[in-house]
Amino acid sequence: MSEFVSKNLAINEKGHLTIAGLDTVELAKEYGTPLYVMDEDLIREHCRSFRQSMEQYYDGAGLVCYASKAFSCKAMYRIAKEEGIGIDVVSAGELYTAACVDFPMDKVCYHGNNKTEFELRMAIEHKVGRIIVDNIYELELLNKLAAEEGVKARIMYRIKPGVDAHTHDFVKTGQIDSKFGFALETGEAFEAIKKALSLENIEFVGVHCHIGSQIFDIAPFVEAANVMMGLIEQVKVELGHEITELNLGGGFGIKYTESDTPVPYADYMDKVSETVKALCKERGLKLPFILIEPGRSIVAPAGITLYTVGGIKEIPNIRTYVSVDGGLGDNPRYALYKSEYDFVVANKADKAKDSVVTVAGRCCESGDLLGEGVKLQTTEVGDTLAVLATGAYNYSMSSNYNRVPKPPVLMICNGEVKVAVKRETLEDIVRNDM
Amino acid sequence: MSEFVSKNLAINEKGHLTIAGLDTVELAKEYGTPLYVMDEDLIREHCRSFRQSMEQYYDGAGLVCYASKAFSCKAMYRIAKEEGIGIDVVSAGELYTAACVDFPMDKVCYHGNNKTEFELRMAIEHKVGRIIVDNIYELELLNKLAAEEGVKARIMYRIKPGVDAHTHDFVKTGQIDSKFGFALETGEAFEAIKKALSLENIEFVGVHCHIGSQIFDIAPFVEAANVMMGLIEQVKVELGHEITELNLGGGFGIKYTESDTPVPYADYMDKVSETVKALCKERGLKLPFILIEPGRSIVAPAGITLYTVGGIKEIPNIRTYVSVDGGLGDNPRYALYKSEYDFVVANKADKAKDSVVTVAGRCCESGDLLGEGVKLQTTEVGDTLAVLATGAYNYSMSSNYNRVPKPPVLMICNGEVKVAVKRETLEDIVRNDM
Repeated sequence: MSEFVSKNLAINEKGHLTIAGLDTVELAKEYGTPLYVMDEDLIREHCRSFRQSMEQYYDGAGLVCYASKAFSCKAMYRIAKEEGIGIDVVSAGELYTAACVDFPMDKVCYHGNNKTEFELRMAIEHKVGRIIVDNIYELELLNKLAAEEGVKARIMYRIKPGVDAHTHDFVKTGQIDSKFGFALETGEAFEAIKKALSLENIEFVGVHCHIGSQIFDIAPFVEAANVMMGLIEQVKVELGHEITELNLGGGFGIKYTESDTPVPYADYMDKVSETVKALCKERGLKLPFILIEPGRSIVAPAGITLYTVGGIKEIPNIRTYVSVDGGLGDNPRYALYKSEYDFVVANKADKAKDSVVTVAGRCCESGDLLGEGVKLQTTEVGDTLAVLATGAYNYSMSSNYNRVPKPPVLMICNGEVKVAVKRETLEDIVRNDM
Repeated sequence: MSEFVSKNLAINEKGHLTIAGLDTVELAKEYGTPLYVMDEDLIREHCRSFRQSMEQYYDGAGLVCYASKAFSCKAMYRIAKEEGIGIDVVSAGELYTAACVDFPMDKVCYHGNNKTEFELRMAIEHKVGRIIVDNIYELELLNKLAAEEGVKARIMYRIKPGVDAHTHDFVKTGQIDSKFGFALETGEAFEAIKKALSLENIEFVGVHCHIGSQIFDIAPFVEAANVMMGLIEQVKVELGHEITELNLGGGFGIKYTESDTPVPYADYMDKVSETVKALCKERGLKLPFILIEPGRSIVAPAGITLYTVGGIKEIPNIRTYVSVDGGLGDNPRYALYKSEYDFVVANKADKAKDSVVTVAGRCCESGDLLGEGVKLQTTEVGDTLAVLATGAYNYSMSSNYNRVPKPPVLMICNGEVKVAVKRETLEDIVRNDM
């Protein structure tokens, strides 16, 4: 068992941190820092494990869709394609990227609270498997655009089920206050379904919900399935229409630090399948095709970020700042949410963490920190600092603040290093400047 | 007098919002949304006004350096060059951009708490006028690199003066807890100056401080000048060395909303000059060359962002979400700091603001909001929404989250529209994907 938050991390005979068996200090030397490194084998293992849980507990009558906003690039879509799972996209940019690798479009879900007309047209033209419609304006626009193309748009609705699980506890109120979707409890969702069923160029196949992020309990997912099956039953009883697909979203928690305790993801499909099957039997409903949308849980544990330590500033009786050559630009999550990570000095991974420091980014901004109260080996200038579990929402949220080029993404597959995304150049930075 | 936060905004005969005399609704139609629009004439006016205040109150014995992290692109550096002011850069990317327009390098200050070796070499090779050294490690590295090139690096020190003015009040403690610079009160700064003076390949010309951002009072600037002149005196008395340059940084507040009350920037040079001159006379010091570094105050009021309104979601008894086609990706300041802005429906600018809404971005992220409790004209799908005073820290902090391309930046000069930065394309998004 690894002592790290991800099982693919270890310490080699030099005392260096390894990822997927490769020496991170050597990787930093060869490819430069900052550097994102991802373990493709672990990503694939996660894809398979979600897929297998669908096979095992739900007879494969469903589709795992990777929520690609967590980490989107051609290489990642190739992996999803090869592993036979679907993807979620949320923009023309993500759809375009997927199209670049000939991703099977019937396995694409297109999400978003405010898709543009250009994007809806693009989704129709690419024959995206499911467009998850967020509001009535979008429904009507989509119906019109589909009519212009002489096709039926295949849609699901995003529903606010009234189950909110953003924290360890879950609450059954409040989530109605969201920019996403149709409210269930007010009857808004039901009315919208009636409307969708009446439209010529809309094929309404199902309902979708997403109850939160970084969730560590199964109960709220089961509760959401319960509530959504209630809606499916209501539609059957009152409208005589059998909804065939149920999309239960994502939000499965991952281990960022010691204090995070994710449940095995297979347990999720086990319990949810049990609930859905029991309800269908009890109420005489057909078993719906189930979609689930893991994002973070597929990629976050598979990635780390490597930095080089620059200035170290010990401020007596206050704190020690350890500055690295990246920061807010490549990982804005601490600045945005005070997200916690585990840190390791990669070239001293076998040493005790005998200091507590603030890890500061390189941006000209006081708020550019990567962590405070961080336990770390004693650092020196030139050390390689690893931040763990950065595979999700790091590269995807990266900016060019201070005109700093974005780091490259390496993928390690079977012990081989591939560049998945090249490092931006200074020329890239000015490419669109006139 | 304009009723808007910036004087270059007005309402035309169609009831549309104008910027620099041009109809924003027409601009949105022609160039698409999201769209950054900047008033070059106003930017130039700000540059001149800072420059003139230096002439008027300090006999021109100084340099205004535009802190370009606020908004960096070739077009902006051309403006600074033509207006005869200097610039601050904080990265290889900003320096490279400046070099692309042949910016006079003697007027460049290079800042940052953790410049890389590559960047320090680049600064030396470009003969940057002043490198603002942050810590002893950097000093020693720079001395070594300058020796390798057979030159002297011209440097200033970033000092923590113990004056902190991040809020309306200012405090004289606490700022020692910063990732930036040398502490004054502990003697760290003085010792570091001794060291710099002893190094062969370092030309130590002065001291720099920066006391905060979005400051509305002059008193803390005067206090900082006071404290810094004390250090200059101490160095003269104890080391027999006359420091010739004093860099007082930036931080001048701008009007984001009605409640912001910036002082005329000329008042700043008036009071600061008075203080510095009096102290020099009293203590027998030579008048230092003064640098000031306005960033936000030069560009923020000159810019607006235009969006198109998509879905509008009225949630009874809770709130109304108005979704736009941009958000967190092109303006992360609300997500990062809950920054407030003024909003106007550009095509209904003459109407009363009779509603209070939440403006939501398009990203698949609950936190992607641009404002809450926003007073706005009644909105409809297709309206053009303007966010005011977005000229600073919007384009510069923009990301491709959700793989959304960055909007273009237009500059309006003498009533003519120029594209300063082109809109990113979908091809740009995948350019570095392998």
